[in-house]
Amino acid sequence: MRLSRYFMPILKENPKEAEIVSHRLMLRAGMIRQQSQGIYSWLPLGKRVLDKVNAIIREEQNRAGAIELSMPTLQSAELWQESGRYDAYGKEMLRIKDRQDRPMLYGPTNEEMVTDIFRSSIKSYKDLPLNLYHIQLKFRDEIRPRFGTMRSREFMMKDAYSFDLTPEGAEHSYNKMFAAYLRTFDRLGLRAIPMRADTGPIGGKLSHEFIILADTGESEVFCHKDFVDFDIPGEHTDFDSVEGLQAIFDKWTSLYAATSEMHDEAAFNAVPEGDRLSARGIEVGHIFYFGTKYSEPMGAKVQGPDGKEHFVHMGSYGIGPTRLVPAIIEASHDDNGIIWPASVAPFDIVVINMKAGDQACDDTCELIYAALTKAGKDVLYDDTDDRAGTKFATADLIGVPVQIIAGPRAVANGEVEVKDRKTGARETMTIEAAINRFVA
Amino acid sequence: MRLSRYFMPILKENPKEAEIVSHRLMLRAGMIRQQSQGIYSWLPLGKRVLDKVNAIIREEQNRAGAIELSMPTLQSAELWQESGRYDAYGKEMLRIKDRQDRPMLYGPTNEEMVTDIFRSSIKSYKDLPLNLYHIQLKFRDEIRPRFGTMRSREFMMKDAYSFDLTPEGAEHSYNKMFAAYLRTFDRLGLRAIPMRADTGPIGGKLSHEFIILADTGESEVFCHKDFVDFDIPGEHTDFDSVEGLQAIFDKWTSLYAATSEMHDEAAFNAVPEGDRLSARGIEVGHIFYFGTKYSEPMGAKVQGPDGKEHFVHMGSYGIGPTRLVPAIIEASHDDNGIIWPASVAPFDIVVINMKAGDQACDDTCELIYAALTKAGKDVLYDDTDDRAGTKFATADLIGVPVQIIAGPRAVANGEVEVKDRKTGARETMTIEAAINRFVA
Repeated sequence: MRLSRYFMPILKENPKEAEIVSHRLMLRAGMIRQQSQGIYSWLPLGKRVLDKVNAIIREEQNRAGAIELSMPTLQSAELWQESGRYDAYGKEMLRIKDRQDRPMLYGPTNEEMVTDIFRSSIKSYKDLPLNLYHIQLKFRDEIRPRFGTMRSREFMMKDAYSFDLTPEGAEHSYNKMFAAYLRTFDRLGLRAIPMRADTGPIGGKLSHEFIILADTGESEVFCHKDFVDFDIPGEHTDFDSVEGLQAIFDKWTSLYAATSEMHDEAAFNAVPEGDRLSARGIEVGHIFYFGTKYSEPMGAKVQGPDGKEHFVHMGSYGIGPTRLVPAIIEASHDDNGIIWPASVAPFDIVVINMKAGDQACDDTCELIYAALTKAGKDVLYDDTDDRAGTKFATADLIGVPVQIIAGPRAVANGEVEVKDRKTGARETMTIEAAINRFVA
Repeated sequence: MRLSRYFMPILKENPKEAEIVSHRLMLRAGMIRQQSQGIYSWLPLGKRVLDKVNAIIREEQNRAGAIELSMPTLQSAELWQESGRYDAYGKEMLRIKDRQDRPMLYGPTNEEMVTDIFRSSIKSYKDLPLNLYHIQLKFRDEIRPRFGTMRSREFMMKDAYSFDLTPEGAEHSYNKMFAAYLRTFDRLGLRAIPMRADTGPIGGKLSHEFIILADTGESEVFCHKDFVDFDIPGEHTDFDSVEGLQAIFDKWTSLYAATSEMHDEAAFNAVPEGDRLSARGIEVGHIFYFGTKYSEPMGAKVQGPDGKEHFVHMGSYGIGPTRLVPAIIEASHDDNGIIWPASVAPFDIVVINMKAGDQACDDTCELIYAALTKAGKDVLYDDTDDRAGTKFATADLIGVPVQIIAGPRAVANGEVEVKDRKTGARETMTIEAAINRFVA
């Protein structure tokens, strides 16, 4: 992509409304734009990151056997009356009347709808287990949306729903998502720690929030520091192995980890003092087993091997992509801007032409741009006539992992400079060497 | 994908509510499910097709230089008051009040919002031309939604918006989309004919509907039959060439083509009788140049090379992916079901195990399934214990282009049958030959 033809409205000033660094950087880098309170456009640079985040989420959901569909954003109130949540859900539910005066709502979540889909077509235990997910916009009419897309009103959610004949089956389904989440966050460059969450009237121990540690986190969290070095399940994890997944779950829940809500001072104090980690955390995922909470009132049942009908045992598994993007920035930035993990960077490489219009610089940049693009890299080519200083600042701000810098002096020697955004390390090398480094 | 683990709720009966064949087949194949009047879930099989359609649209938009972003579904009423459309737009606009009682709406289209994004950051002609698009859900509260996703209330739209300094520049931008649309529909397996559409008070000739011919089309269309054989612009089309694109536009508008709305009986009668084609048509795209209709009231202007401010000239370019899927089915099906063009088929190949549980059949199918999947093919493996007849009917219904059928007798000879869904042609060959045919 040539920057001269791209749409990346960089802000020079720090936007006043942004209280946290990710919000500030996303606005400054031209990734997002607020359209109404808590409602954002994802501008091209932001959209690229969001797409890469979603692609990773999707791959890991599919690997774990979840199946993608797409449910609509608007739902009928009737469905929520069946579960009893239409009245129970507070003002965060955006209630709507259509032209026929029928009560509708903008879905804040999809338990009811997916249960409705399930009951309309699945009748036998032979079709279980089943896990259906979608990545869809949701709306929660927060009274005080803030922190940009970290806590917005219209937001994107990956929500998966599992259906099993028995609680034991549901536990296996839960463990699949548990392992998938560990893999997902790891691939996003995050170290997320599963922490016990409140199960409310459902009871049991199958509710976990996945928390990343960041100074600007909304809640205080407490955990054993060894979590930071725990192994992530590999890509050949056998998701059909009940024992294998149980072992992963057991390992990752073997040490103390709790949000302030679930914090047990005495238990935490039992952790050796040098191993205690207390920090701020951001919730990036939540998984929850809720048994027959929706299947009973909504009549979602299957015939079991015993010939009788059984209400299915369900769980739900959420990740918020539009919240993950700022969370990644909170975890990875410096004074100059964002530092993207390679897996979600909007571009792999930015080629900086220090003197656009200079024939040698132009030729060199075009050569590199063409070679890397041909090799399948996402390349941003800064071919604008901005000053070199502005270009460097922009490249640092938008956080592309690698900068290839072509200035008149180096180019005269057949060389360019390669800069690593994260370490700041710069290396001068021949044009050919620079290309070869990134063309595997 | 193993069918035993997939979610594809096939209907055995013809659903009564479906009036047209695409709606009937999409319901029967378990592609969609109605959640409320005119509001659909895309079940896994449908979602796969929709994703492939969107991928092609996206590739062709990008090729033509359009840049993707994502605007939200909910918009503030204020924005529409600026353009004057808030009051003008009828009951099809879904009006909403949030918890603070602020008037919002579910966007039926995005001219206002994209103009707002533009004016907030683009100030100079040097940043033009610009074409921004997104693929996003829209809502139009149709009084009589029908024909499934062909005319639904919540639907998906690819809408692009171009910005230029001059009408001449805007014409080039228009021609880019004109050529991109020809390529897009062609890749989707459709022959779409651009037909002059009403420009209303804007005037001029830059408004075209892209129409495909289908018996169940909603409107009558009239055109010269030579359109059916016109060449489609190649993938190396130079979208920067003003003359090249103008030539494509001129060629494709050189013969008579009009919807009933714009039909000119006398002009049509001037076409030699044997060349006249009058048929039913489905609108699958619409492109429209509207000058300064929104930029003037909303103050979207840039500084020109003359140092003065100019309102930008805009156009909009829509394609409805959720309508394209049924349109493709209307154009390509037979009595047994859907016949997908390869480019949008939910799976490339379905492997049918005629006798699941039979060791030789199972081994053969697993071998083929693994080899084709490894080669990057999307394969559906029917490993269920349904009767062979049911499996054949399902495979025909869902329209996967190729069926590889493994029955005990053939497998005993080391052979399978390969069936072409479209022609019905069957060929017996060795297992190895069957694999090699699809592993390029």
